[in-house]
Amino acid sequence: MKTASIGVVLLLLLAGLFASAQTTPAQPPPAPSAPAVEDFKPASSNQLGKQYPQVNSERRARFHIVAPQAVNVRVPEWGGVTLTKGEDGAWVGTTRPLDEGFHYYRINIDGADVPDPGSKFFYGASRWGSGIEVPAHDEDFYAVKNVPHGQLRDNLYFSKSTNTTRHCVVYTPPDYDKNLNARYPVLYLQHGAGEDETGWGKQGHANLIMDNLIAAGQTKAFIIVMDNGGGNVFGGRGRGAPPGRGAPGAAPGGQPGGQPAGGRGRGGLDFSTFARILTEELIPYIDSHYRTLSDQPHRAMAGLSMGGGQTRQITLAHLDKFSHIGLFSGGSIAPDTPALADPAAFKQKVKVLFVSYGSKENTAAAKANHKALEKMGIKNVYYESPNTAHEWQSWRRSLYQFAPLLFQD
Amino acid sequence: MKTASIGVVLLLLLAGLFASAQTTPAQPPPAPSAPAVEDFKPASSNQLGKQYPQVNSERRARFHIVAPQAVNVRVPEWGGVTLTKGEDGAWVGTTRPLDEGFHYYRINIDGADVPDPGSKFFYGASRWGSGIEVPAHDEDFYAVKNVPHGQLRDNLYFSKSTNTTRHCVVYTPPDYDKNLNARYPVLYLQHGAGEDETGWGKQGHANLIMDNLIAAGQTKAFIIVMDNGGGNVFGGRGRGAPPGRGAPGAAPGGQPGGQPAGGRGRGGLDFSTFARILTEELIPYIDSHYRTLSDQPHRAMAGLSMGGGQTRQITLAHLDKFSHIGLFSGGSIAPDTPALADPAAFKQKVKVLFVSYGSKENTAAAKANHKALEKMGIKNVYYESPNTAHEWQSWRRSLYQFAPLLFQD
Repeated sequence: MKTASIGVVLLLLLAGLFASAQTTPAQPPPAPSAPAVEDFKPASSNQLGKQYPQVNSERRARFHIVAPQAVNVRVPEWGGVTLTKGEDGAWVGTTRPLDEGFHYYRINIDGADVPDPGSKFFYGASRWGSGIEVPAHDEDFYAVKNVPHGQLRDNLYFSKSTNTTRHCVVYTPPDYDKNLNARYPVLYLQHGAGEDETGWGKQGHANLIMDNLIAAGQTKAFIIVMDNGGGNVFGGRGRGAPPGRGAPGAAPGGQPGGQPAGGRGRGGLDFSTFARILTEELIPYIDSHYRTLSDQPHRAMAGLSMGGGQTRQITLAHLDKFSHIGLFSGGSIAPDTPALADPAAFKQKVKVLFVSYGSKENTAAAKANHKALEKMGIKNVYYESPNTAHEWQSWRRSLYQFAPLLFQD
Repeated sequence: MKTASIGVVLLLLLAGLFASAQTTPAQPPPAPSAPAVEDFKPASSNQLGKQYPQVNSERRARFHIVAPQAVNVRVPEWGGVTLTKGEDGAWVGTTRPLDEGFHYYRINIDGADVPDPGSKFFYGASRWGSGIEVPAHDEDFYAVKNVPHGQLRDNLYFSKSTNTTRHCVVYTPPDYDKNLNARYPVLYLQHGAGEDETGWGKQGHANLIMDNLIAAGQTKAFIIVMDNGGGNVFGGRGRGAPPGRGAPGAAPGGQPGGQPAGGRGRGGLDFSTFARILTEELIPYIDSHYRTLSDQPHRAMAGLSMGGGQTRQITLAHLDKFSHIGLFSGGSIAPDTPALADPAAFKQKVKVLFVSYGSKENTAAAKANHKALEKMGIKNVYYESPNTAHEWQSWRRSLYQFAPLLFQD
């Protein structure tokens, strides 16, 4: 599978592009004898009844893989975690303390990259693979509580321009099926490169974040639409994606904030194809199948990483369609951006401009742009997730901060 | 993980209980040099862009695992498929011709049972693991077509009796959100042992089967509710399941048709707890959150394997609530069943009684009961899926046969 290693290299390049390089230095693998507090518990991201992986109060993860005849078992993430074999044939290894929140990982058994059979599976890094949830001090905002719950709905819709049946996930708020006369604003919410339309629900807990905010009276109720924005590094063809375009095209240079200047995507679906599908096919589909408020003041778009780049490109090109913009670890808007040439017109159309990053990302450009826009009289919100990197905890917190700002007029 | 092997043994015992032992004899593993028609194509169940596993026109599956340092790679299913290592470090093996439809499988790398990183993952055998789709001559009935599609909805609901938040999946037909004055009948549809509420949507394609039937005018439109019926062999605690009860209790003896006589389930949720949740919590939840027709003539229940056993137990104990009954590879109803003591009363309440099996299962008891009931004047439908065993193709076809019979009065 030569393409796999090429894919990994491309993914790393890509992650770098959007993350603008994380500032956390690579750490050496912990010694097998690294001291650890022995209060490990099964991770909440485990499959039903599975005892491993586990996490302790220091936020270390411990892996446990039964592979009696293996000669080498390791976890390639976090600088590499070497597992050692016990007398029972099980390989065990423990990480350094990890950041709060969700992390993708994989197990390598004698050269084979495979999912850990103990964890649930999540789509990221262009594959269904393992993830581990490290408890966070603020996890209450995405906890499952006994409050009214909205629904996550799987939708299949036909895209004429690509001649494919596509899949999107739609969150409807708790009262959607009760207030049959009510119509709702809509947030289009995009995943990152190597992820898909399932990410915001499964690893992002977007539904739980909204259920809890709504129950606390902290946000307006709105519909969230999560579509597949492409960006699959390996390209290829599958349900919900048009024929792959093979290897990614030459990536255009990044603009201030780290997002590429629109143009080609990376296999699967290029940026302009996705922009066309979203504006010409998905929005009309949603507006005809859900009870939406379909005017510009009631439509928002946000995205993480690559999805932030797409949000920036699509919203700025269609300010007649979107009034609220959220970029999560996905660039920011520089003062010399053409859409800002007439600041008054921009202010009139854009009710909320929200930019966020994890504090461990390179946030210099975003902060500079935030101030520059304020100076121009363009109100905009900058949020920084404490002690997190280019990962889901930053994006969960970003949605939690962003949602209460929406549709307040 | 000693529990894993115990679990597998229990699962096999369990499968035997419900399948009444498949009649297909175990086949010897094919020789590595077994001739095969070289028209292999990536399976439709693969992850986006993954080239392996593949299937050829003889319905042989070919696996390909990159594990350069491994000493032994095999697929334990189908009597065991031994993979051999090529010079490129990839292990390759080909099966004998398989039955049409969907099959669970796993990869064993040097003693570690792991999912194949090429396939999508499905919940079965009490784990998220690999599955392979073998094209079927009749696959058109569950194909993705450009027809109006219904939705699969993820619902979280609180169960007072178990003090847990549970997850169920609900199919709503294509017009559900258009005809806001319409109310719909409901089918409660259950998975088998070691499976969960996601099975009917993901591997069963219940939504596509319904979409296609409705588009062809071959069935009434109705809601389908898929809940977690427990039966997780490993027990344990997780989202949507109350605390596990550890190892399964002593299984009661089977009745004619192969289902156990109600009573204890197998870890996770016992039969009577599930019956109580379904009748006292889930049905009221569905009737208050969906536009249902909530009277007995408009409520059906069906299930596969263990879910058939649950359907039989629950419907016969609650004929005031259910009018249509479907048992798919999950037993049948013997003439001396107490609920048939008054055949006239039974006939008055039960509008459809449907029993099905795969032709490769032991169908003797089901056929005998079918005839015995007919003799008693109780109309009932027996369906046999050609050339399939205790697997999903039998159950997809069962739903396809069953749905058009529902709610015709």
